[in-house]
Amino acid sequence: MEVLINDKNEEKLIVDILQKVGVDKSDAQKVADVLVAADLRGIKSHGIARLPIYVERLQAGLINKNPDIKAVKENKGVALIDGDNGLGQVASSIAMEKCIELAKEYGISVVGLKNSNHFGIAAYYSMMAAENDLIGFVATNTSPLMAPFGGREAMLGTNPFTVAVPANDEADIVLDMATSLVPRGKVEVFEREGKEAPIGWGINKEGLNTTDPKEILEGTLLPVGGPKGYGMAIIVDILSGLMTGSTYLNDVGSLFGDRDKNQNLGMIMVAIDISNFMEIDEFKNDIDEYINRVRSSEKASGNNRIFLPGEIEYNNTLKNIENGITYEENLYGEISDLANSFELNINDYIIDRLP
Amino acid sequence: MEVLINDKNEEKLIVDILQKVGVDKSDAQKVADVLVAADLRGIKSHGIARLPIYVERLQAGLINKNPDIKAVKENKGVALIDGDNGLGQVASSIAMEKCIELAKEYGISVVGLKNSNHFGIAAYYSMMAAENDLIGFVATNTSPLMAPFGGREAMLGTNPFTVAVPANDEADIVLDMATSLVPRGKVEVFEREGKEAPIGWGINKEGLNTTDPKEILEGTLLPVGGPKGYGMAIIVDILSGLMTGSTYLNDVGSLFGDRDKNQNLGMIMVAIDISNFMEIDEFKNDIDEYINRVRSSEKASGNNRIFLPGEIEYNNTLKNIENGITYEENLYGEISDLANSFELNINDYIIDRLP
Repeated sequence: MEVLINDKNEEKLIVDILQKVGVDKSDAQKVADVLVAADLRGIKSHGIARLPIYVERLQAGLINKNPDIKAVKENKGVALIDGDNGLGQVASSIAMEKCIELAKEYGISVVGLKNSNHFGIAAYYSMMAAENDLIGFVATNTSPLMAPFGGREAMLGTNPFTVAVPANDEADIVLDMATSLVPRGKVEVFEREGKEAPIGWGINKEGLNTTDPKEILEGTLLPVGGPKGYGMAIIVDILSGLMTGSTYLNDVGSLFGDRDKNQNLGMIMVAIDISNFMEIDEFKNDIDEYINRVRSSEKASGNNRIFLPGEIEYNNTLKNIENGITYEENLYGEISDLANSFELNINDYIIDRLP
Repeated sequence: MEVLINDKNEEKLIVDILQKVGVDKSDAQKVADVLVAADLRGIKSHGIARLPIYVERLQAGLINKNPDIKAVKENKGVALIDGDNGLGQVASSIAMEKCIELAKEYGISVVGLKNSNHFGIAAYYSMMAAENDLIGFVATNTSPLMAPFGGREAMLGTNPFTVAVPANDEADIVLDMATSLVPRGKVEVFEREGKEAPIGWGINKEGLNTTDPKEILEGTLLPVGGPKGYGMAIIVDILSGLMTGSTYLNDVGSLFGDRDKNQNLGMIMVAIDISNFMEIDEFKNDIDEYINRVRSSEKASGNNRIFLPGEIEYNNTLKNIENGITYEENLYGEISDLANSFELNINDYIIDRLP
């Protein structure tokens, strides 16, 4: 059975559960904002589906319920925030707020975050900058899943980065991409469905190309564009991990895999105040026009629509606010069990049961 | 016949030719530095091979021989430089010097450059930052060669970007990549040699995948990783073109294709002062160790070496400083003719003729 929930109820459900675990209401609200944004955007792997593991790590003391998150270094356009092993969404929002404040003061800013945890969708934070008329850049390293180009050992994460650019009437342009060609979850789906993976998705234990999803899962993912994705993954790892004093390379802790140690994730954020280059209204109007020039360019044969980066997720958001968010059977079972374990009744939150 | 030249003589040859065209010695020297660096790094498409078109554009008045390059906007960590349609290498070096100065003052800086021309290899400028113990980022838009994802009209350039990270004993890490999967020149080589191109290199005029290099050349290149490279190309175009007040999308002028208009290229540069995060010596030692951890990780079967981004180009530089730079027959003919046209004797510069 599938169920339907609306975004307000999902938000309340997440806040209620996290408060039961002992998280402050305002911190719980921040986590809920980020998870609901992911579900609305259609990135369900990073929505409420992550709540059970957050709760488990909070209860096990692997995430700090009451962190003291603060700047440990600050100099003009630069700050380094210590997340005190708090929830990634809480620490990352504080870091981006600092980044926005410094960008408005100095024209550009860079904020590093160390000692943090999984933060959900990276785009949430770059979009915070865009909502403040800034260009936002955010990157983080993740637990190792990719071999270096020419290697076979998982030394690098899929190390995503995101850039958001504010528009006026149009949806903001939001690029949010991993540096692997595909996520591991996609290989897992192909394995379950018994399908062959295209060449380029990953390599086997010997480091050789394979189309067998099972062999890829035993081996490693491949970076997008070979040396290009490999190089980007290294840059993200150095900026977000090494430079901030966090873990990097194959020392990065896994959200699901490492149930006995802190993740100690690092992030890097940069914001640029566009108004130093041109009037912000002029810029945002130009971006609207830019979007329309790209959108109205000639389509490939058989295609009738060109999308800008982030446009599909924006459209999903409008649609899901209107129609609600569905939980397929497994997810519903997990979230229902989680609610029950805190004596919360899932029926108080869901709005419909689908056949 | 191939000839051999050493880097010092190539540098002198470029300076001598540009001075004959009426370029200041110090500006000519800057162009020579960048072109020689490209030839030494083995990026021969961006070395002295570009000199004839620069000379042609200078003589036609499409590049300004005596530009007044200056900051037209400046506020704390931000500056916008007007290149006054001067040589790209001259304007970009001035822009990166400003970027370095501002990063040392504010911790991070962003410098836009407008009204500029082809600047050679992007890595030259990010490496300037790394030599100053900064992390350097540089991006530029280029003339249209790629369709948007789902399109078929060349709306975007291959819009490259580069990031350089300083190391201590090891070579600095230097990523320098276009956002297309392959450069157009590679497709041209495949066409000349009658070879099939792999799927993913480009599309035909209808926007459909093709393995025929001729059809790709009539169509457009494809971005690396589909929507990923497409998104990156858009971000580079907006930051370097639109935000700096330069041309963007399919208005960007072509170095070779547009002999009747200025290129009006834009660039964006960011530098980060690492010392605000950690002691620079500690950082550079950590990068050395990082490099060695990646290099010594398990190799793919049949491979005995893992390279870091920029390492091959660094090794080429050492080798070519030692052994000289070769000009194959066509290039030799072109450069020899160019020298002759200014009453310079190519024999005064070359150090050997190869069989």
